[in-house]
Amino acid sequence: MADSLRVAIAGLGTVGAGTVRILQQHRDLVAQRSGRTIDIVAVSAQSRDKDRGVYLDGYEWFDDPVAMARAENVDAVIELIGGEEGTAKDLCEAAIANGKHVVTANKALLAMRGNALAAAAETANVSLNYEAAIAGGIPIVKALREGLAGNEITHIYGILNGTCNYILSEMREKRLSFDTVLAEAQALGYAEAEPSMDVDGIDAAHKLALLACLAFGTKVNFDDVYIEGIRHVSLQDIDYAEEFGYRIKLLGSARMTENGLEQRVYPRMVDRNAPIAHVEGSYNAVVACGDFVDDTMYEGRGAGAGPTASAVVADIMDIARGNAAATFGIPVDQLSGAPASPIAGHRSTYYVRLMVDDQPGVIADISAVFRDESVSIESMLQRARSQTEAVPVVINTHECEEAAMRRTLDRIGALDSVVEAPTMIRIEPLV
Amino acid sequence: MADSLRVAIAGLGTVGAGTVRILQQHRDLVAQRSGRTIDIVAVSAQSRDKDRGVYLDGYEWFDDPVAMARAENVDAVIELIGGEEGTAKDLCEAAIANGKHVVTANKALLAMRGNALAAAAETANVSLNYEAAIAGGIPIVKALREGLAGNEITHIYGILNGTCNYILSEMREKRLSFDTVLAEAQALGYAEAEPSMDVDGIDAAHKLALLACLAFGTKVNFDDVYIEGIRHVSLQDIDYAEEFGYRIKLLGSARMTENGLEQRVYPRMVDRNAPIAHVEGSYNAVVACGDFVDDTMYEGRGAGAGPTASAVVADIMDIARGNAAATFGIPVDQLSGAPASPIAGHRSTYYVRLMVDDQPGVIADISAVFRDESVSIESMLQRARSQTEAVPVVINTHECEEAAMRRTLDRIGALDSVVEAPTMIRIEPLV
Repeated sequence: MADSLRVAIAGLGTVGAGTVRILQQHRDLVAQRSGRTIDIVAVSAQSRDKDRGVYLDGYEWFDDPVAMARAENVDAVIELIGGEEGTAKDLCEAAIANGKHVVTANKALLAMRGNALAAAAETANVSLNYEAAIAGGIPIVKALREGLAGNEITHIYGILNGTCNYILSEMREKRLSFDTVLAEAQALGYAEAEPSMDVDGIDAAHKLALLACLAFGTKVNFDDVYIEGIRHVSLQDIDYAEEFGYRIKLLGSARMTENGLEQRVYPRMVDRNAPIAHVEGSYNAVVACGDFVDDTMYEGRGAGAGPTASAVVADIMDIARGNAAATFGIPVDQLSGAPASPIAGHRSTYYVRLMVDDQPGVIADISAVFRDESVSIESMLQRARSQTEAVPVVINTHECEEAAMRRTLDRIGALDSVVEAPTMIRIEPLV
Repeated sequence: MADSLRVAIAGLGTVGAGTVRILQQHRDLVAQRSGRTIDIVAVSAQSRDKDRGVYLDGYEWFDDPVAMARAENVDAVIELIGGEEGTAKDLCEAAIANGKHVVTANKALLAMRGNALAAAAETANVSLNYEAAIAGGIPIVKALREGLAGNEITHIYGILNGTCNYILSEMREKRLSFDTVLAEAQALGYAEAEPSMDVDGIDAAHKLALLACLAFGTKVNFDDVYIEGIRHVSLQDIDYAEEFGYRIKLLGSARMTENGLEQRVYPRMVDRNAPIAHVEGSYNAVVACGDFVDDTMYEGRGAGAGPTASAVVADIMDIARGNAAATFGIPVDQLSGAPASPIAGHRSTYYVRLMVDDQPGVIADISAVFRDESVSIESMLQRARSQTEAVPVVINTHECEEAAMRRTLDRIGALDSVVEAPTMIRIEPLV
């Protein structure tokens, strides 16, 4: 058996502690399966004294994780600090510059600085592995980089944020409002006190940007991801979706088109019979379609200590075996810089919910705007009647261009009888 | 870039031709992603003149695939002949003995001779890859051998035979009998003229035996797989399953218990809300549960030229990259020889359908047998009445031991008023 692989772990939060636990508890199994013992030799975190429920005796302690990343006796560094700047970045750069392999769960860092880090790793001939950065325990990076490598990927989409999927599932199943479920999720630790990264779609967009470059051989381009979160999705919308045979999911999707690379994160009404419609709670799922393999779907827990640490350990075991693949599937200098396909040119059918004063003529005013913008109405519902409160009017459109839909919404939102900003959710087939 | 990897393909049926097509059509992409060009240098099949829709010019033709497996200029051999004996076996053995890597889609060969072949490959220090042998295009071997390698797998189950899943789906959706759908599937080429390998569960059992050793580090032991097919499942059973909130799926499942290794293939009634219940038609899916990662599910097309060839090419690309893992996840001499957990000791709840003459006393006679064997009845339905035809009596039991259930069925089947052999389908939670 080869010499052991010596690893250093920076960051001992739940995922860091989980990683330590796997490498301790499955030490023999890991050695059996990777052909080498994997030894933790050093750790670093903010507080040395905190009880993390794992033994750290015998591991060298570093107050400075960047210094740890340069240590002579370290072969590979596991970065679990997080954040697109600062220590996490410095540490990864220092590790690579010193010829150490890097494993990270840091989607923000890779989404913002992945091109430079991948180039540095390639120059240094070290691995930069990040299975844990996308969809937790699901081996989707491995599937794209290796398992489906014989295919041209035609499109990819997925439920990439467990917090949003949990909120949408709970709203539907327990008939609760977004705010109530969010507060509940925060109390349970499923959502952050500052939930914007999750509920505004940014975390999903980080992951989508990485999936897109793995799928299409493009440079990471987070700035071109079009993003909407789920704050505007109400229980009413969820009910209407069910009535129409759909389920609302926050999906990230990417596709290469003749207009450029589409990278989009927004809530969608998807066919309730589609497999991805049944992915509930904090689970994640990714569907990747290849020209030969057709649709493949990967589902599992998208977060949590165990699942994320499972992905970290798989990455480290690949390094122990000496198995490597290019960071984004192909050499960095061959990654293309595809232009972004603009959202204004997107075509979809749309669900629109308006809250209106129930007065004579309001439907005529709304209909006139749709007509003027050439957006064809497929159905219109106004069930409730009230002389005192606003009532919902729900309109589903035929397929039209996003730009026309937006002009329509702007004009309708400005009508006196429309008392809230219109809610728009795209209804799209999963192709 | 390294020298090209030179491959020889034995067998040019749909999968062989699909493999040629990918390697030709995606030649540049494959080279980009694996860091080396992959060149087909030789092919072999039964008939040299047959039109397979792919160009074979420039590839050396061998009438004898075993001779091809020994050829000097070949680095890796792709075996797509099939069968557990004969040419396929000779060819794989010859390739390994001559230091060539082997990629195969042959589950029968590996299920019967996998231990010896893996040992030979290990001795020769070559890869024996078989992603295409299990669940077509789904990268499940890679997921188990690498992606989930940090986990102890607690259990694994899946829909492993697309023909059976197609038949069960069609029966339910179109309300047709087993025989009608089978004939239709044969006409469409989805089922073989001699369908026994598929509908009697043998093909699924071959795949399950391989999954079990990947999951649990055991030697391949096909002989100990307990197998039932789907010939006894009627449209009535499918309807009752729906009524009770279940869906009938032919599942293969494996688990390590204190009584030994469970390896089982039989139709099951699974919760209609479970993700695997929504895997329809010719799709396959595998659920692998690890102690850290929890449940993960992989779904895709289980057969067909494109999906299967996609898996073959992924295996070849791993070889081109120099990436390797032990055939069954750990070195052959460390694979354990777990005893089989006997089916007689299995515990389950059971669905039983009896066709009876509708006479006074028949229910009392049946109930008495259940009582005598201590099998507790959870519900009993006898809806139809007829003085001329047999009518169904459907019984769901509480959990009991399989041996007791079988004694009950034997005795009930012998009653004069029971006019057909009883149908029994297990109702089991997916844990």
